[in-house]
Amino acid sequence: MIVVMKPKATARQISDVINRVQADGYRAHLSEGEQHTIIGVVGESPTPLREENYSVMEGVEKVMRVSVPYKLASRHFHPADTLVPLNGALMGGQKVLVIAGPCSVESRDQIIELACAVKEAGATALRGGAFKPRTSPYSFQGYGEKALQWLAEARERTGLPVVTEVMDAALVPLVCQYADVLQIGARNMQNFTLLNAAGESQHTILLKRGMSSTVEDLLMSAEYILAQGNKRVMVCERGIRTFEKATRNTFDVNAIPVLKAATHLPVVADPSHAVGLWEYVEPIARSAVAAGADGLIVEVHARPEEAVSDGRQSLKPDRFKAMMEQVRRVAEAVGRTA
Amino acid sequence: MIVVMKPKATARQISDVINRVQADGYRAHLSEGEQHTIIGVVGESPTPLREENYSVMEGVEKVMRVSVPYKLASRHFHPADTLVPLNGALMGGQKVLVIAGPCSVESRDQIIELACAVKEAGATALRGGAFKPRTSPYSFQGYGEKALQWLAEARERTGLPVVTEVMDAALVPLVCQYADVLQIGARNMQNFTLLNAAGESQHTILLKRGMSSTVEDLLMSAEYILAQGNKRVMVCERGIRTFEKATRNTFDVNAIPVLKAATHLPVVADPSHAVGLWEYVEPIARSAVAAGADGLIVEVHARPEEAVSDGRQSLKPDRFKAMMEQVRRVAEAVGRTA
Amino acid sequence: MIVVMKPKATARQISDVINRVQADGYRAHLSEGEQHTIIGVVGESPTPLREENYSVMEGVEKVMRVSVPYKLASRHFHPADTLVPLNGALMGGQKVLVIAGPCSVESRDQIIELACAVKEAGATALRGGAFKPRTSPYSFQGYGEKALQWLAEARERTGLPVVTEVMDAALVPLVCQYADVLQIGARNMQNFTLLNAAGESQHTILLKRGMSSTVEDLLMSAEYILAQGNKRVMVCERGIRTFEKATRNTFDVNAIPVLKAATHLPVVADPSHAVGLWEYVEPIARSAVAAGADGLIVEVHARPEEAVSDGRQSLKPDRFKAMMEQVRRVAEAVGRTA
Amino acid sequence: MIVVMKPKATARQISDVINRVQADGYRAHLSEGEQHTIIGVVGESPTPLREENYSVMEGVEKVMRVSVPYKLASRHFHPADTLVPLNGALMGGQKVLVIAGPCSVESRDQIIELACAVKEAGATALRGGAFKPRTSPYSFQGYGEKALQWLAEARERTGLPVVTEVMDAALVPLVCQYADVLQIGARNMQNFTLLNAAGESQHTILLKRGMSSTVEDLLMSAEYILAQGNKRVMVCERGIRTFEKATRNTFDVNAIPVLKAATHLPVVADPSHAVGLWEYVEPIARSAVAAGADGLIVEVHARPEEAVSDGRQSLKPDRFKAMMEQVRRVAEAVGRTA
Repeated sequence: MIVVMKPKATARQISDVINRVQADGYRAHLSEGEQHTIIGVVGESPTPLREENYSVMEGVEKVMRVSVPYKLASRHFHPADTLVPLNGALMGGQKVLVIAGPCSVESRDQIIELACAVKEAGATALRGGAFKPRTSPYSFQGYGEKALQWLAEARERTGLPVVTEVMDAALVPLVCQYADVLQIGARNMQNFTLLNAAGESQHTILLKRGMSSTVEDLLMSAEYILAQGNKRVMVCERGIRTFEKATRNTFDVNAIPVLKAATHLPVVADPSHAVGLWEYVEPIARSAVAAGADGLIVEVHARPEEAVSDGRQSLKPDRFKAMMEQVRRVAEAVGRTA
Repeated sequence: MIVVMKPKATARQISDVINRVQADGYRAHLSEGEQHTIIGVVGESPTPLREENYSVMEGVEKVMRVSVPYKLASRHFHPADTLVPLNGALMGGQKVLVIAGPCSVESRDQIIELACAVKEAGATALRGGAFKPRTSPYSFQGYGEKALQWLAEARERTGLPVVTEVMDAALVPLVCQYADVLQIGARNMQNFTLLNAAGESQHTILLKRGMSSTVEDLLMSAEYILAQGNKRVMVCERGIRTFEKATRNTFDVNAIPVLKAATHLPVVADPSHAVGLWEYVEPIARSAVAAGADGLIVEVHARPEEAVSDGRQSLKPDRFKAMMEQVRRVAEAVGRTA
Repeated sequence: MIVVMKPKATARQISDVINRVQADGYRAHLSEGEQHTIIGVVGESPTPLREENYSVMEGVEKVMRVSVPYKLASRHFHPADTLVPLNGALMGGQKVLVIAGPCSVESRDQIIELACAVKEAGATALRGGAFKPRTSPYSFQGYGEKALQWLAEARERTGLPVVTEVMDAALVPLVCQYADVLQIGARNMQNFTLLNAAGESQHTILLKRGMSSTVEDLLMSAEYILAQGNKRVMVCERGIRTFEKATRNTFDVNAIPVLKAATHLPVVADPSHAVGLWEYVEPIARSAVAAGADGLIVEVHARPEEAVSDGRQSLKPDRFKAMMEQVRRVAEAVGRTA
Repeated sequence: MIVVMKPKATARQISDVINRVQADGYRAHLSEGEQHTIIGVVGESPTPLREENYSVMEGVEKVMRVSVPYKLASRHFHPADTLVPLNGALMGGQKVLVIAGPCSVESRDQIIELACAVKEAGATALRGGAFKPRTSPYSFQGYGEKALQWLAEARERTGLPVVTEVMDAALVPLVCQYADVLQIGARNMQNFTLLNAAGESQHTILLKRGMSSTVEDLLMSAEYILAQGNKRVMVCERGIRTFEKATRNTFDVNAIPVLKAATHLPVVADPSHAVGLWEYVEPIARSAVAAGADGLIVEVHARPEEAVSDGRQSLKPDRFKAMMEQVRRVAEAVGRTA
């Protein structure tokens, strides 16, 4: 941590900061510039350094952090890629893995039909929503446990592991009974009670980036899960909210190489939410893989014009199959498979 | 709802849309322009209209919504201001009410000292965090129930009702035992399980806007609470996330008159989070009242340089007192009191 | 400037940075932390310090700037408020000054009628567009010099000084012949050729913030004008572009106290563009004055339903008069006049 | 255009709108819903329809536009791809074309050395800044005409056409003497005087998206150039400004397929500015091509640690060569060459 003093800070104000640094158990390195005196805070101490407390001391202009605030998620402390097992393959490994299925599980027949279709096209896992976070209280909220049972039945038929969202800490045990991977959605990325429960579950977690969360915020939320000893965490870029309204969200493709450099966790991309219009899902899926994504999660529906949710961004099975072929070609171009 | 057909839509595609409209139980009004055929969907039906399903039909260019998606929160259906009782006064009434206190409850003595100070300065209610949502798992997470007890004790001493955050649906019953107002924080604005539980509790709710939520999103979340029959809801503007980093958030002061026009619910502003730097809390508090806010929620701490959270944006008691004086003058200038 | 080395930076990489610092004519202060070695760069030298060049050196993690990059605009080097004369009053002084008039000058009669109306309501200066920046090439582009002549005639009648936009460096001499204040619009805030020409003109300048410019960017653009020896510069907050679409822009009211602290230049607010809907202009004008704005610039039109531009956000003269009354009351509440 | 009346609009207000529609030379289609009366405006007339004028009429709730506001840039009116000749190839054709070179032209030797290097690696054209838009008046502003001469010399040596920025309408004739392609930078995307001059020049134009401009804004600016009869326009996505600060800008990769669908003009991507950190330029270049970009513009510098501008994002020639190899592989994966 670095404390920058105001140009007119007094000797007393400077020594007050130094004393505080020492009282907190750290060492202070003084550096006097033409305008600003700068105090470097170094060493280790059981007392946490709270930037905010220093920033309000008299004579302090600003406080700058030097290190990243996440440890377990950081590649610096864990250089090797974390590989998360999924259906006999490894997310984060050489092969780009694709999770696919409908936004909402709508019926037993629907999910089994789609599970077969996405498996045939090459998907590694099945997605489907049982509990749905909806902006409106009047929208379909999911079939709940019944949908979980249908998902489990689809798994039995196809062998595809099940990825489904859990919206509340109290539901983690129930969802764990049926699902192979717990998805934490964008709106819950900073639901810390849920993050702790997901960590304690020791289940595999797919953590989606919040729509206005920074890359650092995302890794701090991953840190919550890792801090519970659960290392099977995948992070997912799904588009952020910006001024541009031509698409549902703005896919932050930059975040993919940035995340790959900052963390050892596998990085998944969700082109369906990232662009929100089915006709552009395929090019965005290609761009994600070209940028280095380890996996994709894609919405597929047999009849989008009847879907109870997200019909606008769902691929029909034949379009999904075509997308898979394209993704494979791009994966090979960047030295991977799919 | 209005369906805009593509310039080259065929007669068949147009009739397919019309048939679907009728099958859903509505009437279709056709309007043929030079480039686009437009289909107005009118009438009432038990079948909900899902824009997304129409938008993926062949020949459809886009679908535009005409009405707002919230009913209970809308001023159109409920023209009179909702007044929420607070400490013998009414939030949403003629007097601007101020809720004040520390970010975190840090000790019994701290909260009692601050409760007395903010009461003396004219606050109507006491805020204080018992359960704290923190970006980092390594930061102080709140004293939990112990802090709730201290808050209750501070209420006993001062008569100030207690406003405190609840982070998880499972904790609603516990927090209701101690608190007069449940705060739902920005990060949980779309935690729909929590919104439902807050609605069911029939407790007074202070609902903060998410940092990337639109005004419409905020009112949809209020709708969740209202849909449970709980009418004591206050909405709170606390700054949104933008590209500007000179301040912690960007206070969307526009949202205050926009909300006052769109909804009958009281509108509170949080200048502390909105700007994030104590030296600017006072002018931002003034601006909120000048724009028509019904209330304020402000962070106050006796020793910000020792605060376990949000020290950077906390006013000392004497600055808070000065702010109250300023707020009173501005409130009078706009025909209110404070 | 502070150079933060990577955790595994070698002694050689560190000495390379130090050597470069010395070669550039500065001194290097070394501070060794547990993870990072930090190099403070202090002293003065004719060689400019380019952060980017250091940031790409081997072993460097990041480079952090300590000082603000503007000197002439900074309050640090010029603590006293700059007061800009306007119609016998001083922008930046005790009185809040209001500039008002139509978006576009549409006819001789229109501008004279409006000049009389805004003068009577208490405006200090007249605004009106002669050259109009329009998103569409098919929209009305302004009456050009003819409009400037009409503005000059309106000034003669009313005594109100004329504020009008100049869109291109080549037009600065022409606009200076007629206008008292040159406005540089949001879209041209980083048209550096225009900024230089505006500086050279030695005319009074009203510089509007770009819709995605930070406060620092705005002050850097002001620095261009000041660097030409032209000290009569007013900066103007007019709303920024964010994800929220309920209003035309998001008024960054935080920027007002931030600017007042960072610079000695007067700070004007434009509530018309900031909110974009006439029904909310009055509360936003009040909020700006409550936050400390030195002046306002407001769009007024006698028949907004016939305005060739910005009809949606223009106040009718009687509403403007009512707004002025409100602004006066708020100004007095914060110890000023209007 | 569609006019939505307020729920309580009177018959008189409705007929006033209809009369205005007819007075403007259009036909009005009335559609009465449960809550809202909706008036569709159809037909053609020489009188332009100004939404704003209707939106302020009594009883009007909102006005919605149906058609896009650009005609010449729209793929609807011009379905075939526009192909822009560049060095014997065609931008917008089957081959992905790459423009490369330094941010600033720093010397005769530098630009010739880099021109040779990028040509050898497969670039189709040479970029280099002679006039530089810089945030700070104290930064290097470019060598001006001298740099243009050096660029011309580099073209003579290598045969690579020259792409360089023009910052002001008055300089268009000078830059046209030396450059093959005029670049209009992000900060000038809405400098309408410059757009008109660029259109009149009939030179090939590379138009960069402004950092807070929507896709529609970009196409409206292209429309300015096309409206002057100049059809050789390429549009360029170079990253937008968002809340995320881990990278210089946020590359809006979604915009690539959106632009390809909306316009017939070639779409270029600038991965250097889009991410701003050289280590991520290669993956972002790959993602752009995978999403369907017709071309790339990339910054290359032999010694980024000495570059006078943009050193942080410049590739060294060997890294550029490696990038070209990667881009070629991805281009082939999507059925193109590079």
